[in-house]
Amino acid sequence: MRMPRIAVRAVAIGVVLLGMGFAQASAQTASTTEARTAIENVLKTQQEAWNKKDLDGFMKGYWNSPDLTFFSGAHIASGWQGALERYRKTYQGAGKEMGKLDFYDLRIEPLGADSAFVRGAWHLTMTDGKTPHGLFTLVLHRFPDGWKVIHDHTSAAE
Amino acid sequence: MRMPRIAVRAVAIGVVLLGMGFAQASAQTASTTEARTAIENVLKTQQEAWNKKDLDGFMKGYWNSPDLTFFSGAHIASGWQGALERYRKTYQGAGKEMGKLDFYDLRIEPLGADSAFVRGAWHLTMTDGKTPHGLFTLVLHRFPDGWKVIHDHTSAAE
Repeated sequence: MRMPRIAVRAVAIGVVLLGMGFAQASAQTASTTEARTAIENVLKTQQEAWNKKDLDGFMKGYWNSPDLTFFSGAHIASGWQGALERYRKTYQGAGKEMGKLDFYDLRIEPLGADSAFVRGAWHLTMTDGKTPHGLFTLVLHRFPDGWKVIHDHTSAAE
Repeated sequence: MRMPRIAVRAVAIGVVLLGMGFAQASAQTASTTEARTAIENVLKTQQEAWNKKDLDGFMKGYWNSPDLTFFSGAHIASGWQGALERYRKTYQGAGKEMGKLDFYDLRIEPLGADSAFVRGAWHLTMTDGKTPHGLFTLVLHRFPDGWKVIHDHTSAAE
């Protein structure tokens, strides 16, 4: 039986849809791996910037928005500007120093295509030998210009 | 022109797929609202259980898994059991009390269909008038038996 053109088209569309299904599944796995690598790079870039005392470079890992939130202790720093001011006050004020920063024990977990959360630990080594340290939880969103932290919850050893 | 059965089926499948697309888009909006309401209820149930000194009821909001994580200060409590033991030690030990718990300033943000994160503040009122308080960040996942906290980062006023 010769199939009419409309039937040939319908079958072709079916094959294309099937292909798209496979492509989507494989793209999802690829995007999870890509997301982890991209986020790892955001944090690595932050750590390197901090250790060059480049606070502006460090801040590039954060969403430049008034909706960024930064929790520490019982304090909320609101917006990118608020987070920057907290860092300036805590690490660049009189008698303060940035120290050498290490991030470790990172656990990056993609949540859907454009979101992820990161559990990790931070450790500073100061010139006087003090070692402030603690934990952080980050929520990141994928923007057209890359992954950015939209929420940071940082806590320190008591 | 009479279409062969295969073409009729292919077109029917196309129509169904299109319908599913619309249904999915509308379900997504509905599920965001549903997710917020469901998560609000999880936290409300936790608060009520705490205030009845029902720690087991409170713990029902957490994922019962060794992979649950609970960050506070520089301390990681690993697993549901670890989180329970931390609560017992901190609030049910000798000379300790659970106090009256309030959650407030909740911001529930769905991330994809089955994940969400919550920013919020907690406040305890103890019988001696002390009021420990601070902030929390929760990551939740939707399981077949409902939304559960898979990661909790809690910090307190210093």
